[in-house]
Amino acid sequence: MSRSKDFETQLARTEQQLHLLQQISRFMTREMSLQEILSGINRLIVEFTQADSCLIYLLHDRELVLCSANNAPPEALGRVRLKMTEGLTGWVARERRQLAISREAYLDARFKHFTTLREDTYEAFLSTPIIARNRVVGVINVQHKLPHQHGGDEMEMLSTIGEQIGTLLVLARMSPDVVESTNHLELVFPATAKSG
Amino acid sequence: MSRSKDFETQLARTEQQLHLLQQISRFMTREMSLQEILSGINRLIVEFTQADSCLIYLLHDRELVLCSANNAPPEALGRVRLKMTEGLTGWVARERRQLAISREAYLDARFKHFTTLREDTYEAFLSTPIIARNRVVGVINVQHKLPHQHGGDEMEMLSTIGEQIGTLLVLARMSPDVVESTNHLELVFPATAKSG
Repeated sequence: MSRSKDFETQLARTEQQLHLLQQISRFMTREMSLQEILSGINRLIVEFTQADSCLIYLLHDRELVLCSANNAPPEALGRVRLKMTEGLTGWVARERRQLAISREAYLDARFKHFTTLREDTYEAFLSTPIIARNRVVGVINVQHKLPHQHGGDEMEMLSTIGEQIGTLLVLARMSPDVVESTNHLELVFPATAKSG
Repeated sequence: MSRSKDFETQLARTEQQLHLLQQISRFMTREMSLQEILSGINRLIVEFTQADSCLIYLLHDRELVLCSANNAPPEALGRVRLKMTEGLTGWVARERRQLAISREAYLDARFKHFTTLREDTYEAFLSTPIIARNRVVGVINVQHKLPHQHGGDEMEMLSTIGEQIGTLLVLARMSPDVVESTNHLELVFPATAKSG
């Protein structure tokens, strides 16, 4: 009985993760603005992690620029900027590693306080690089006000989301007609395509 | 007890689906050849669906060209070609719809026999368009020798894989330095980027 309940809970959780990735996949085939897509993914992350804050930073001129936030003032978007040498976020981008802190994240020496975002009020911090074509192009931060032990599924899922956002960024800069004019055969069979 | 077993089975199945999408996501960040990626995805599809045959066709000059197969002779790749007006595969590409036939697929009037691929020996047929930037760019066919009732999870998963392959095709034609030189801020905030 309790075993059945355990499986049921786990199943619901796994189904949620699967559903989340399927929704992100849908974003890839649609002609939506990148801003709408980032907001959509931000919402999905908050739903899944039950986080109080989710911030998405993108790399621009060697700075990490806040591009999406679930609860920051709108004027912070595009304005809040971090150097690659600053804070936990800069560390994650530099090291290309995921970082999970379950409590008192604000005490970490790498932490940088932002009074505008009030990041110093969060206990738990989970941060993952956004990867496109094997390069760091941003960082996702998920924060909880209360201490929070991050599960393996949360960490794995955030890594995958980091890869998917990276992919969406690459897609966003291509015009649709490029897709139509692409020679797929040449891509798959570089040698044979010319003669075929 | 049996209820617990049901949940356990469902959980294993859902975990497999999640794992499959996570593996495809990994392909997106790696610098692999498209041929290797298609082979890798083909293997994952066969594992998941327990199919006897998985064929991936890509669109080239208004023809669907076989680009990946789990059990076709290597010389068929790049050679077997279907017009958009031919067979179930052409129908799926044209209609941009998924098609599932659980038995006697070879009797379908839309079916076209291929002696080289021996497609006439399969009872069950599941076919999904590959979508990139809202356009059909190929078709995935999954076939079973014996009659097979396709589950909702199989159909949903194959749709998602069709989207992910489409995305991988778009990525494949971009050079890595394009990623580095991309102005992400301009993509997210088209208006503000110039002044920022």
